[in-house]
Amino acid sequence: MKMIIHIFFILSLVSSTSFASVQDFCVADPKGPQSPSGYSCKNPDQVTENDFAFSGLAKAGNTSNLIKAAVTPAFAPAFAGTNGLGVSMARLDLAGGGVIPLHTHPGASEVLVVIQGTICAGFISSANKVYLKTLQRGDSMVFPQGLLHFQLNSGKGPALAFVAFGSSSPGLQILPFALFANDLPSELVEATTFLSDEQVKKLKGVLGGTD
Amino acid sequence: MKMIIHIFFILSLVSSTSFASVQDFCVADPKGPQSPSGYSCKNPDQVTENDFAFSGLAKAGNTSNLIKAAVTPAFAPAFAGTNGLGVSMARLDLAGGGVIPLHTHPGASEVLVVIQGTICAGFISSANKVYLKTLQRGDSMVFPQGLLHFQLNSGKGPALAFVAFGSSSPGLQILPFALFANDLPSELVEATTFLSDEQVKKLKGVLGGTD
Amino acid sequence: MKMIIHIFFILSLVSSTSFASVQDFCVADPKGPQSPSGYSCKNPDQVTENDFAFSGLAKAGNTSNLIKAAVTPAFAPAFAGTNGLGVSMARLDLAGGGVIPLHTHPGASEVLVVIQGTICAGFISSANKVYLKTLQRGDSMVFPQGLLHFQLNSGKGPALAFVAFGSSSPGLQILPFALFANDLPSELVEATTFLSDEQVKKLKGVLGGTD
Amino acid sequence: MKMIIHIFFILSLVSSTSFASVQDFCVADPKGPQSPSGYSCKNPDQVTENDFAFSGLAKAGNTSNLIKAAVTPAFAPAFAGTNGLGVSMARLDLAGGGVIPLHTHPGASEVLVVIQGTICAGFISSANKVYLKTLQRGDSMVFPQGLLHFQLNSGKGPALAFVAFGSSSPGLQILPFALFANDLPSELVEATTFLSDEQVKKLKGVLGGTD
Amino acid sequence: MKMIIHIFFILSLVSSTSFASVQDFCVADPKGPQSPSGYSCKNPDQVTENDFAFSGLAKAGNTSNLIKAAVTPAFAPAFAGTNGLGVSMARLDLAGGGVIPLHTHPGASEVLVVIQGTICAGFISSANKVYLKTLQRGDSMVFPQGLLHFQLNSGKGPALAFVAFGSSSPGLQILPFALFANDLPSELVEATTFLSDEQVKKLKGVLGGTD
Amino acid sequence: MKMIIHIFFILSLVSSTSFASVQDFCVADPKGPQSPSGYSCKNPDQVTENDFAFSGLAKAGNTSNLIKAAVTPAFAPAFAGTNGLGVSMARLDLAGGGVIPLHTHPGASEVLVVIQGTICAGFISSANKVYLKTLQRGDSMVFPQGLLHFQLNSGKGPALAFVAFGSSSPGLQILPFALFANDLPSELVEATTFLSDEQVKKLKGVLGGTD
Repeated sequence: MKMIIHIFFILSLVSSTSFASVQDFCVADPKGPQSPSGYSCKNPDQVTENDFAFSGLAKAGNTSNLIKAAVTPAFAPAFAGTNGLGVSMARLDLAGGGVIPLHTHPGASEVLVVIQGTICAGFISSANKVYLKTLQRGDSMVFPQGLLHFQLNSGKGPALAFVAFGSSSPGLQILPFALFANDLPSELVEATTFLSDEQVKKLKGVLGGTD
Repeated sequence: MKMIIHIFFILSLVSSTSFASVQDFCVADPKGPQSPSGYSCKNPDQVTENDFAFSGLAKAGNTSNLIKAAVTPAFAPAFAGTNGLGVSMARLDLAGGGVIPLHTHPGASEVLVVIQGTICAGFISSANKVYLKTLQRGDSMVFPQGLLHFQLNSGKGPALAFVAFGSSSPGLQILPFALFANDLPSELVEATTFLSDEQVKKLKGVLGGTD
Repeated sequence: MKMIIHIFFILSLVSSTSFASVQDFCVADPKGPQSPSGYSCKNPDQVTENDFAFSGLAKAGNTSNLIKAAVTPAFAPAFAGTNGLGVSMARLDLAGGGVIPLHTHPGASEVLVVIQGTICAGFISSANKVYLKTLQRGDSMVFPQGLLHFQLNSGKGPALAFVAFGSSSPGLQILPFALFANDLPSELVEATTFLSDEQVKKLKGVLGGTD
Repeated sequence: MKMIIHIFFILSLVSSTSFASVQDFCVADPKGPQSPSGYSCKNPDQVTENDFAFSGLAKAGNTSNLIKAAVTPAFAPAFAGTNGLGVSMARLDLAGGGVIPLHTHPGASEVLVVIQGTICAGFISSANKVYLKTLQRGDSMVFPQGLLHFQLNSGKGPALAFVAFGSSSPGLQILPFALFANDLPSELVEATTFLSDEQVKKLKGVLGGTD
Repeated sequence: MKMIIHIFFILSLVSSTSFASVQDFCVADPKGPQSPSGYSCKNPDQVTENDFAFSGLAKAGNTSNLIKAAVTPAFAPAFAGTNGLGVSMARLDLAGGGVIPLHTHPGASEVLVVIQGTICAGFISSANKVYLKTLQRGDSMVFPQGLLHFQLNSGKGPALAFVAFGSSSPGLQILPFALFANDLPSELVEATTFLSDEQVKKLKGVLGGTD
Repeated sequence: MKMIIHIFFILSLVSSTSFASVQDFCVADPKGPQSPSGYSCKNPDQVTENDFAFSGLAKAGNTSNLIKAAVTPAFAPAFAGTNGLGVSMARLDLAGGGVIPLHTHPGASEVLVVIQGTICAGFISSANKVYLKTLQRGDSMVFPQGLLHFQLNSGKGPALAFVAFGSSSPGLQILPFALFANDLPSELVEATTFLSDEQVKKLKGVLGGTD
């Protein structure tokens, strides 16, 4: 009995001071202002276990498209609990012949693990050296931050991979979309890539860019 | 005279541009939104010297409790001026036989310095190795971030220590409270710690946990 | 022809200065000195694509043990290419009834995704609040840095998960091993956890700890 | 035709999930709350190319003042697009005999490049060692974070330099202003600098400090 | 006299303990091992003012090449004193019609200031939005970390700019070289960029890539 | 018996992979190369509990000197276990009339707690505003990174304080020593501080500087 009373002493003591200043996590509140460090934090009293779980990676992405592939990210704020915690994941689905085109993540390095199928993956360093691997089920590969890399289904059936990022907002810049799916004038694309006018205009047409 | 006029030139010049963009500190405004980097900043015009001072460490914590000990933290926002500055302190009072149970600080490493008495302190590494020291007045010890550690009064009289943290929000997870002072089902505690049902239920009873 | 000559100009120009100072990655050289930021970097000239790939996650860990589970990490330097890149992965295998006991990662937050089976996972906050979820195939959950958490096979067959960390050296402190699998004197374990002498000695016996 | 339809598939797929969580930049919104990581982010929909450009460095600062020099910073939020990006610049104009007095940047290291004239620059290390260089047009020098340094026109005509900082809010503490241009009591200035009462009062008079 | 003796007391006292542990800077020693945080530090006793100065930016780069442009970086270890200080600079020379092709810096954001001429610069966000500006002498622009950007001489005469980076090793990945100046198989380039076989092979020919 | 056998399974399994890659701490090895992140790590096999403890703060510093004060730091590598852990402490002893002159810590913010006596402390912001407090036993105050600050014994007897830093190498630049205790030419000191020639030469004489 006396012990229990003591407990109340200690609990009230400690909680009155330390717990008010604890910041274990910062679940994203997409309605609040953002800062360079991420999204505002949801009121801790309203945080539940559901903020730390995400079912969006359970379903295969729709690969009925040009690249026969889909990227399903679980970044903040879609996966609100990851905000500010320096880690996130995404799911890659590649149908037969599918490809995730050359892209970069400006904000994080990436580790990929193959769950199903065979994936040919590679990245290019600042020294323009190519690092290329064919990965089977269970194989993993790391892609350093900000470097151009790609993943390509080099097997017969569909392929599935999960990728890890060292940020809750790694970003994703897909090269052909960055070049051809916007209003960057063709002459600027050409001057800054050495591509031909014909090539640029053709791909702008395909990817929806304007001139 | 001319010199003084010049001064006004330079002051107005410099202040009109640079000072507006200076961010020497970010005194916590607990009413504003939080971000992964900490609390919102109080309006600089309303910041006074009192925001940078804290008297809460002056008084001994109440050690009339189960552990015969008290932790008095000076973290943000209790000590508003530390917000975002990457450092904070706390006060440990240990009556005779007092103990700060095994705990971790998820967000920072800690340095302890003994002010009074004798403290036996230790931490356990990821390799499960134990680092144990008996510290006298003036002795200090460092506890790496996130590792389980404890402090125990191993002298005759009361003991007092101050501890430094490399964060203004180091967090504090006290092991027996984490295990036994909440609604984590007993069977889960047992399955994930190897403790016996009897032990778990007894300590849940003592520490106020429910089943 | 003239163009090609020009190319040599530009290549030699740029490479002679910038490429020498590029540090896209720092593949771990386990034989060199370590620093607080990680392992020494392997000579870039000796780095190959194999440094960025890892096959250690392909094989199921051996779950014929007490916990009917296995953790297979792909941290630096086992997966040398991740060194310093702020991300890594691990594989969790849980046989029927398997459990990854309560543990922390002092150096990183974690995201888990279930590949097979059903996993009950949870973590405890600094405020001693429990966040508990039952995860099916494809479900993911995030565990904030340094907080106690566990994973338990709550389905019928075996379970498999991959986990991502926001560090190439997240660390791993498994609670029952930290308490009972070393030479931390029983009386210190008891004083700092409130466990009974009987309980501590029994588990020290089971887990190989000495008194 | 079919290809174009596919494009719509992929664009809608990817954008519906990933783009919402991208945080490439955080243009300063000076009206929102600040955090330890910087200013709040402007609504991305209202960000334009003008947020990433700044013309304030184009005009020479007014050097008709005591120090015959001017510092024109391009820090956040004056240059809103730099907020949180870890880099900024400033312009130094030094008329003949001009000097940027001893100062520190509490929040960043600095690299200076001389555009015009001759500048004598130096910094003092924690070990009180002096590193001094006379820099001509095109020469650059680095000043480590937080150390006292100065720049002085040691040529005949005016001098111009641009300086780079590793933060969008490096701060600027100019020593003689910190000592003599405020209400820090003369006796405290004297006790903490060893300067004479006469010297302190004279410079307080010149620089507008009160006693 | 007594004062001077006292000075020796204080100097010996302080220096014997604190100065030994000071690390104001870490001048790059290219012969030592590298770590994820940068180059090894040169022995402080051998550091001189020359380690903190760099004259390599004084001379215009050779623009007699395909792009009529030159990038002269002052990164670590070329500019040894910047190592680990989180800031560096580079010089851009653009002859008439010169262009710095689309490129990224994986490790830092960039601020550019125009010294001479007229430069058209732009970057593309993760959302594929283009931010484009024509910059005159003295104008500056910021390019967020890891995003594709370019600079192009849009004036009549030569153009000169200095650029600042928030890292001493920002890296530099030039898109056309990454795509066409190495041994990345043409079919992989095509599959991951949507470029035509003809286009890829032509540019591989021009830029020295092999198939 | 079967349980114990299982234990060996699990221990060997886990330790063979994960423990080899754990980096809980990096005890300074002063003989190895330094990096921007700190000192090299001592071989973990040779690390003992003594690396994490430090008795250097137990003894009062010698205050028989000009400033009647002493700073006793416990930084890396003097306190080897703190290396890279982002926290350290120091001891301040102030005899009657003692003063720690104006100084900065380029690498960390500081929290001070008074153990004995009365201390008048203050700092000056980038905006030249003064924040001044008189602190009694148990009072604490925070000094933001890189800003000029001082501590002065304003009581009758001796004063003692402990200070915490958010870095294991905060650095220490003491203003009067930086100005007057080296070979910085008097005319440069004068030009960059506005101090008189007489004042500078007098203090150079007192503090051991040369002209």
